[in-house]
Amino acid sequence: MPQPADTINLERLKALLGGVNRYGFDPETGGYNRPGFSKSDLDCRAWFAAQMEEDGLTVWKDGALNLFGRFGSKEGPCIMAGSHLDTVVNGGAYDGSLGACVALECVRTMKEAGLEPATAIEVVATSEEEGRFGGMLGSQAITGEVTPDWIDSAVDADGIKLTDAMRANGLIPEQVPDAVRPSGSIKAFLELHIEQGPILEQEKLPIGIVEEVSGVCYLELVLSGIANHSGTTPMHLRADAFAGLAEVSGTIGALIQDHGTDQSRITIGHVELSPNHPHTIPGKAVFSAILRDTSETVMVALKSRFLENATAIASRHGLKLETAERSWLSPLKLDAELAERMSALAERHGLPARRMPSGAGHDAQTMQRFCPSGLIFVPSRNGISHAPEEHSDWGDIEKGANLMLQALIDLSGATR
Amino acid sequence: MPQPADTINLERLKALLGGVNRYGFDPETGGYNRPGFSKSDLDCRAWFAAQMEEDGLTVWKDGALNLFGRFGSKEGPCIMAGSHLDTVVNGGAYDGSLGACVALECVRTMKEAGLEPATAIEVVATSEEEGRFGGMLGSQAITGEVTPDWIDSAVDADGIKLTDAMRANGLIPEQVPDAVRPSGSIKAFLELHIEQGPILEQEKLPIGIVEEVSGVCYLELVLSGIANHSGTTPMHLRADAFAGLAEVSGTIGALIQDHGTDQSRITIGHVELSPNHPHTIPGKAVFSAILRDTSETVMVALKSRFLENATAIASRHGLKLETAERSWLSPLKLDAELAERMSALAERHGLPARRMPSGAGHDAQTMQRFCPSGLIFVPSRNGISHAPEEHSDWGDIEKGANLMLQALIDLSGATR
Repeated sequence: MPQPADTINLERLKALLGGVNRYGFDPETGGYNRPGFSKSDLDCRAWFAAQMEEDGLTVWKDGALNLFGRFGSKEGPCIMAGSHLDTVVNGGAYDGSLGACVALECVRTMKEAGLEPATAIEVVATSEEEGRFGGMLGSQAITGEVTPDWIDSAVDADGIKLTDAMRANGLIPEQVPDAVRPSGSIKAFLELHIEQGPILEQEKLPIGIVEEVSGVCYLELVLSGIANHSGTTPMHLRADAFAGLAEVSGTIGALIQDHGTDQSRITIGHVELSPNHPHTIPGKAVFSAILRDTSETVMVALKSRFLENATAIASRHGLKLETAERSWLSPLKLDAELAERMSALAERHGLPARRMPSGAGHDAQTMQRFCPSGLIFVPSRNGISHAPEEHSDWGDIEKGANLMLQALIDLSGATR
Repeated sequence: MPQPADTINLERLKALLGGVNRYGFDPETGGYNRPGFSKSDLDCRAWFAAQMEEDGLTVWKDGALNLFGRFGSKEGPCIMAGSHLDTVVNGGAYDGSLGACVALECVRTMKEAGLEPATAIEVVATSEEEGRFGGMLGSQAITGEVTPDWIDSAVDADGIKLTDAMRANGLIPEQVPDAVRPSGSIKAFLELHIEQGPILEQEKLPIGIVEEVSGVCYLELVLSGIANHSGTTPMHLRADAFAGLAEVSGTIGALIQDHGTDQSRITIGHVELSPNHPHTIPGKAVFSAILRDTSETVMVALKSRFLENATAIASRHGLKLETAERSWLSPLKLDAELAERMSALAERHGLPARRMPSGAGHDAQTMQRFCPSGLIFVPSRNGISHAPEEHSDWGDIEKGANLMLQALIDLSGATR
C-alpha cells in the first residue's frame, strides 16, 4: 500500500514566520526592518537558533553570522537549504525569511515523519543578503568570495563601515573569511524565495523553478548643461539636462525591441536634477540606468547601444555626458540537472510549476558558483516586494514548500 | 553751440554698485545673499539711504521698506526710477541692484550737470522683489495690491512667516498697506535691469527696450504608478512614473511648434521621484511645468494641449495623473508710448537698442498696472542670472545707463 505523500504543516510554518517577523516590525508602516548586522537582525537570528535547538538540530553560526542547523549525520557533506533573514529597510514579511522558515519546516516534517537523511541536511539562515554593504555577504563568505580588503572597505549608504557595524554587535570582522566551506562539503543548495515579480501571478501558477538569473549592469550617467532662467532663455538656446535625460529614456523601448529579448529590462530609477527648481532650466541631471538580461551578449549590446544613444542625444542638446559603470554582474545559469529533477518531482506530486528566469539576485546564484544550486519561486501579489505590501498566498506557499520537501527527501536520500 | 551730451560717470556707478555688494557677499561661493527682510538686506538699504542723503535727496522709506530718494520739487507727482536691492540666495551682483544704482547715478549726473527736473525724480530701491514670500512685495505695496490677509499668510520656503521676518527687524507688518501711493502721484516708472537671457549678447546689442512681459503658468503634476523591482518586472507589465514623465517631456518640442510662438517656453525644472532608488521602478513622479508666452491665448492653448498630452501618456503607461495649477500670471504689455519714446532717445543718442519681450518678471510690470512703465535691459553674459556667475559688461551698462539718463531728463522736463 503506498504511503500518503509527506506534506509540510502549514500552520506550523505560519507560526514560525510569524515568530521571525516579531523582530523589526514597524507598526506605523507595517514594514519590517532587519538590515544586516542590526540589533533586530541579530535578535531574530538568536531566536531562530533557539527554535532549531528545540528541534534537536546541531546549531552553530560561522564568522559571517550565517546560522546553521544540521539534521542527520554530524560528519560528511550536506544538502543545504535556506535563505536569508535580513530585510531591506521597511521591507516585507516574506523576502528571505520565508525561505529560511520553509527549510526548517521541511526538516521538522521529515523528523516528524521519521525520515532520516542519508546525507545530512543543513538549514541555513544566511546573513546580509540584501546588500546593505554592497554584496551578498553571507553566501559569499560560505563560497570564499569575501576578501579581507573588501571587508575593510565595505560601507553602507549611511557611511557606516561593515567592520564597525560588526564590532558594535560583538562580532569579529577578521573571522568572516573563516566562514568558507571546504570544497565538496555542500552537495547541493536549495532555496525557496518569493518571485518579487508578476509572472507566476499572471499565469496563475503556484511554483516557479528558476533556471537562470539575469545579469545586472549598473550605469551612472551625468548630463551637464546650463542652468539658466526658464523665462528668458529661448527653447533653441537651451542646454537642458532634463530634456536630454528624458530623450534618453525615450529610446529604451526601441532599444530593447531592436537589440534585446523578453528578458531585457532597462530601468531609470534614480534621478537628481540641479538646481531642481521649477523656474530654472536643469543644468545637471545625475541618473542611474540598470540594464538586465539573461544573456551576457545581449547585455553587452544593450549597454553599448544605450551609451551610443545617450552620447548622440547629449551632443544634440549641447550637453556634456559622463558615464561610469558602477557594477557588472554576469548572468548565471543555475544547475540544469537540479532544475530538471525538481520539475520531475513537481509533476509527480501534482504541483503545477513552470521553468523561469529570475530577474532579481539571490543567495542561490552565489552558491551555484560553489555547488549545484536550485531556486523555487512562489508568486508575489502584484509583483510587489521590498515594501510592506509584499504578500504571497499561503496556498501557493504550501505548494512551493512541499516541492522543497520532496526535493530535500530526494537529494538527501531520506528513508524511514 | 550744441552742448556735449550728458553722460553718466561710470567709475562712480561702479563704486556705488560695489558699495551695495559689500552686503551679503559670500566669499566661499562668490555669490550674494540679501533675501528680502534679512539683516544684510536691511543693512544694505540703510547704507543706500545714507548715500542718497549725502547727495542731498529727500530720503524716506515706506511701510513695505521701499526706500525713496527724491530730487526736485517736494510737492506734486514724480517720475520714479529704480529697481530692487534684495537678491535670491547665492545670487549675482547685478540683478536688481544695478537698476537701483543706475537710477541714483542718473540723478547724480543731472545734479552735477545743473539739470533741474520740472517734475521731481524719485529714486526707488524696492523691497522683496525676488519673491522670498511669493510676490513682488515692494512694488505691489506701492500699487496697493498687497492685502492684510496676504501679509498674514505669506510664508517663505523655510516656513518663516513674513510677519515674523518683519517684526524680527523692527518692522511693522500692519504698516505695509500704508505704502500705497495716491492715484496719479507717479507719472511714469522706469527700470533698468539685466536681461537674464542670452538674446542681447547673441545679437551683440547693448540695450533692450522691453515692450511686454511673458505670462507664467505654473503647473504641478503627479504621475503615480507602481514601484516594483526593476529586475523582476517585465517592461510591458510596468507602470513606470518616470517613463511617463520622460514621454511628457518629449512632447514639448512639437507642442510649441504646433501651438506656440518664438516667445513660448515650457520648462520641467523640478522633479522628485519615489522611491528614487536605482533598482526600483519609479512609483511616483512629482514635477513642475512652467509655461510662458507673451500671448494669453497662446498660453491657454499650450496649457490645454500640454495637459491633454500628459493625460494620454498617463493612460498609455497605466499611471494616475493629478494636476494642479499653482499660479497663473497673465502676460502684460508695458507702456507703448514710453517704449517708443525710449527707442527714439536711443537712436538720437547713438545707443544701439532693440525692442524685445521679457521672459522674467520685474517691478516694472507691477508698476505698469499703476502708471506708464518702461524697462531697459542690458546684456547678461551667457544669459546667466541668480548665480555668482551673473555678469554684465560695463561698456554695455554705461550705454543702458545713458539711455536711462536721457529718458529721465526727457520725462522730468529737466533744464539747466
